[in-house]
Amino acid sequence: MIWKIFLVQEHGRSRKLSKIWVINERVRVGLAESLSTYVMMVFGLGSVAQVVTGRGAFGEYLSVNLGFGLGVAMGMHIGGRVSGAHMNAAVSFSMCLFGRLGWRMLPVYILCQLIGSFLAAGTIYSLYYDAIYHYCGGNLTVSGPKATAGIFATYPAPYLSLPAGFLDQVIGTAMLLLCLMALSDQRNQPAPSGSEPIAVGLLVLLIGVSLGSNSGYAINPSRDLGPRIFTAIAGWGPEVFRAGNGWWWVPVLAPMVGGVTGASIYKVFVELHHPSPCEHRREIEDEAEEEAAPLDMQKNLSPEVCV
Amino acid sequence: MIWKIFLVQEHGRSRKLSKIWVINERVRVGLAESLSTYVMMVFGLGSVAQVVTGRGAFGEYLSVNLGFGLGVAMGMHIGGRVSGAHMNAAVSFSMCLFGRLGWRMLPVYILCQLIGSFLAAGTIYSLYYDAIYHYCGGNLTVSGPKATAGIFATYPAPYLSLPAGFLDQVIGTAMLLLCLMALSDQRNQPAPSGSEPIAVGLLVLLIGVSLGSNSGYAINPSRDLGPRIFTAIAGWGPEVFRAGNGWWWVPVLAPMVGGVTGASIYKVFVELHHPSPCEHRREIEDEAEEEAAPLDMQKNLSPEVCV
Amino acid sequence: MIWKIFLVQEHGRSRKLSKIWVINERVRVGLAESLSTYVMMVFGLGSVAQVVTGRGAFGEYLSVNLGFGLGVAMGMHIGGRVSGAHMNAAVSFSMCLFGRLGWRMLPVYILCQLIGSFLAAGTIYSLYYDAIYHYCGGNLTVSGPKATAGIFATYPAPYLSLPAGFLDQVIGTAMLLLCLMALSDQRNQPAPSGSEPIAVGLLVLLIGVSLGSNSGYAINPSRDLGPRIFTAIAGWGPEVFRAGNGWWWVPVLAPMVGGVTGASIYKVFVELHHPSPCEHRREIEDEAEEEAAPLDMQKNLSPEVCV
Amino acid sequence: MIWKIFLVQEHGRSRKLSKIWVINERVRVGLAESLSTYVMMVFGLGSVAQVVTGRGAFGEYLSVNLGFGLGVAMGMHIGGRVSGAHMNAAVSFSMCLFGRLGWRMLPVYILCQLIGSFLAAGTIYSLYYDAIYHYCGGNLTVSGPKATAGIFATYPAPYLSLPAGFLDQVIGTAMLLLCLMALSDQRNQPAPSGSEPIAVGLLVLLIGVSLGSNSGYAINPSRDLGPRIFTAIAGWGPEVFRAGNGWWWVPVLAPMVGGVTGASIYKVFVELHHPSPCEHRREIEDEAEEEAAPLDMQKNLSPEVCV
Repeated sequence: MIWKIFLVQEHGRSRKLSKIWVINERVRVGLAESLSTYVMMVFGLGSVAQVVTGRGAFGEYLSVNLGFGLGVAMGMHIGGRVSGAHMNAAVSFSMCLFGRLGWRMLPVYILCQLIGSFLAAGTIYSLYYDAIYHYCGGNLTVSGPKATAGIFATYPAPYLSLPAGFLDQVIGTAMLLLCLMALSDQRNQPAPSGSEPIAVGLLVLLIGVSLGSNSGYAINPSRDLGPRIFTAIAGWGPEVFRAGNGWWWVPVLAPMVGGVTGASIYKVFVELHHPSPCEHRREIEDEAEEEAAPLDMQKNLSPEVCV
Repeated sequence: MIWKIFLVQEHGRSRKLSKIWVINERVRVGLAESLSTYVMMVFGLGSVAQVVTGRGAFGEYLSVNLGFGLGVAMGMHIGGRVSGAHMNAAVSFSMCLFGRLGWRMLPVYILCQLIGSFLAAGTIYSLYYDAIYHYCGGNLTVSGPKATAGIFATYPAPYLSLPAGFLDQVIGTAMLLLCLMALSDQRNQPAPSGSEPIAVGLLVLLIGVSLGSNSGYAINPSRDLGPRIFTAIAGWGPEVFRAGNGWWWVPVLAPMVGGVTGASIYKVFVELHHPSPCEHRREIEDEAEEEAAPLDMQKNLSPEVCV
Repeated sequence: MIWKIFLVQEHGRSRKLSKIWVINERVRVGLAESLSTYVMMVFGLGSVAQVVTGRGAFGEYLSVNLGFGLGVAMGMHIGGRVSGAHMNAAVSFSMCLFGRLGWRMLPVYILCQLIGSFLAAGTIYSLYYDAIYHYCGGNLTVSGPKATAGIFATYPAPYLSLPAGFLDQVIGTAMLLLCLMALSDQRNQPAPSGSEPIAVGLLVLLIGVSLGSNSGYAINPSRDLGPRIFTAIAGWGPEVFRAGNGWWWVPVLAPMVGGVTGASIYKVFVELHHPSPCEHRREIEDEAEEEAAPLDMQKNLSPEVCV
Repeated sequence: MIWKIFLVQEHGRSRKLSKIWVINERVRVGLAESLSTYVMMVFGLGSVAQVVTGRGAFGEYLSVNLGFGLGVAMGMHIGGRVSGAHMNAAVSFSMCLFGRLGWRMLPVYILCQLIGSFLAAGTIYSLYYDAIYHYCGGNLTVSGPKATAGIFATYPAPYLSLPAGFLDQVIGTAMLLLCLMALSDQRNQPAPSGSEPIAVGLLVLLIGVSLGSNSGYAINPSRDLGPRIFTAIAGWGPEVFRAGNGWWWVPVLAPMVGGVTGASIYKVFVELHHPSPCEHRREIEDEAEEEAAPLDMQKNLSPEVCV
């Protein structure tokens, strides 16, 4: 009985501790999410700055793909087991919708991602200050032959209509989330344990290589909005929000739609059809001679005992 | 005895369930095969569209190699443990011929692959609609300086004769299957468990880097025919089947021949000679001092007990 | 008792042996550190020499990124488990400061790194002697259109002020150490065991792709100073120390500052907040229904028993 | 006693079987070595053919590095556990010298490698026959603006003297073997188990990126001599042996010297100094407080019990 009372007291103390811990946990997760987004964006924006200001002598379009791809991989190593290193509001939003992240954490994630990408824009601005001014002659423009705003945020190609741009961002983010779902589906062929960062990095590289030329593959509200706000403050002015027929809201909203679409497609086409281990096993034993099913489906069987 | 009756009844029920399950299994496998082919093709065709319409500003030939290579890797993560993610009728055909897939499943695989690649062509067409029209001035042509049909299906280089093109596709697919057999041969040096997608992706990248300039390395009927049918419907017209002296059937038929050839070469040169664990071990113990054989052959010994 | 005497004697003998062993250990570690730095630098400098003297026919800027990135990976395979293969005085210095390396070993590491990079510069000079003379017509210059000193040591871009260059090296090395800390943090998402060399190699490639155009991403005193001394002796003369307003000391000093900064940032933002296994577990059990915290934080729990 | 007689009889039978088995083993190893060399060379030569005949539209110098690098990786998957997939006479020779391969097997290896690379040259010649003729107008030359012999064998840059070329091949092969020794040294930081092919592939890519512009990084007698003989027969004539002041023997002889040099350097600098587990452990326990040695040296301890 004393033992029980102790437990109750313990529980009371634990309750209070728990409150502190929840706050601490938010700080902990928020710091990691900020830092991983910061690292990803420093590498990503840095690669664009280098290609633009280097006039082709210090890299090419493929360098930008590598910069964002490997930047995402490094970001995942930074925040991986602490915050999950989403680094993308569309990813956080989809995780909430599919129950993998509590909704209460969503504002923390988005805010920290925006802070991280804003600070990364500032870092790259300081680092390439001389290079940018040397390149554009001190005239910070959003469009034209010496435009430099594109180092920080994305702008659509001149031929792209706004609806087509929206579709571009929806499809790009849908492909991202569709593949992310597969890479983490332990009942399918996931990325090898420990190699998730490089697998996701290669996925982002791939999206840049194949779905990037229309509007620079933002596919991420946090990646685009933070640096855009920074450029508005740092000298490019409100034009960064007006350019491209008011393009700025497209890479904020469309990835939300696309992310949920892509994750749902994977669920409908693949995840929902994973057999429960028991019924699957019984059927297989039964029709061993039927031969119709592919031979490697047995890999799906988990080692759990079926009653 | 009651137990036995129950078993028989159970068996009867199971029979019926089995029929349903076989249908379900086909749906399950088909959906996964469609989606993995779709994902692979969106990334692959997207990279070509970007390089062609970007006039070199958004990637180069190497980007296309990366687009198809990493696209295959992502496709394998999507369908991996469900359908095997062949994404290639020549692979499915070879798997059937070598007993790794039931023949009854072959039409399901090929049909789903064609649907996947057809839909991917449609997706890329929508996504790059503005870019394609901006590039070619609204004039969709199959050949000439502003040809855009090559974004979707493959066409031979002008100097290539039809027999040489057939040989090109046979050799390309033979190298693909030869290496695929090695990558999955557990008694040799296979791709590390879990890394199969990236290993196969690098193989496809490699084929693009070294065997691609003659006719665009289709090496895959499903990759080529689906998008070709799409272009015939979407505005390029029947010319897509006439171009290159009626090239279209070459990447459909030659990969079938090449796939079987390549897989057979691996079987004849390597797989057939794998020693059975027992005789191998006895010989090795016997001639430890003979020294003629390479030292690392002992790795072949499986831990099974020999009687 | 005899046993005890024996032990004491043993201990005496061991003391003496220990002295020898400490010397031996320094030799052992020093040889490995020299060789790994040598290997890294031969590959790195070789790639620059090839790009410069080949006038674009034998690689591009990306080749240099690959040369240093994969060169670091190979260097880590050479010295990995013997010396840790720092190959970078800023890394060794930070390791000392954070207690992962004894201070007494620091001079050994730095000296051996300098010897390794000096010898590598000599090797590349011999190897590309004909190519360099053919390229510059026998006139070894530090600046100008046919400058070749940049093959060996780094020089700032013409537009870069000295403070901006210092910042460039601080940020570059900070990003290096920040990510190195994450890649080796076993309580977070480290590089998969055995894949550390390739992960660090990709990190260096990434820094080259995104933070390299200002001053050639030395981010390493040992990489820069050894070859610079070599060029001073080999024919380029004291100009190598005067060029860029006396640039030479920046890549020596700034990486030391940057390395410590980057490692500290990781510690403050992530490492300090790792929960101790026990308190973490208790809280989690307590607030299972609170739902506020992300679901994957439980991965942090170590299997140790909490009392 | 009956048991013993049986054993003797068994032994007699086994002797005879052993003879057959030795012959079989040579066939088995030879077939695998031929096929792996063939695969490596088809991919490698294919990438050169594509870059040369494509006039830059189908790849660049980096494609050739990828072609040979990933080609080596695929070759190692083909012959890996059967023959070791040396694919290089200099590697086989070094393996013999360091006791990892019986000398009696050396002629088998070299012959099979030459057959493999000769057949690969033939395959690439057939595959790119139209492209080569279209490129050079049917005039097969060894030097000059439209030279095509360089697709198959290596030729030195015009500025390269013969001794400098010899040094180039010695250093290139020395770096190859030095790193190969490290990649397979289980007491150091080897390539992760199962990832050896890709690690060696990246090493060959790296050598191409950094040590390739002088003479095309043959670093392999088997890679160079087989295709050179093929071109002599196929239409380029005896000029292939006369070009570059009789260059042909350099990539045959120099890699032998370089391979042994590189492997020896690794042995002298690293391998000889690996502590035996027992003495190492005793010392470590003894000087735990001495602090001079780096902390991660303890990883070297094997789990064996020391008496």
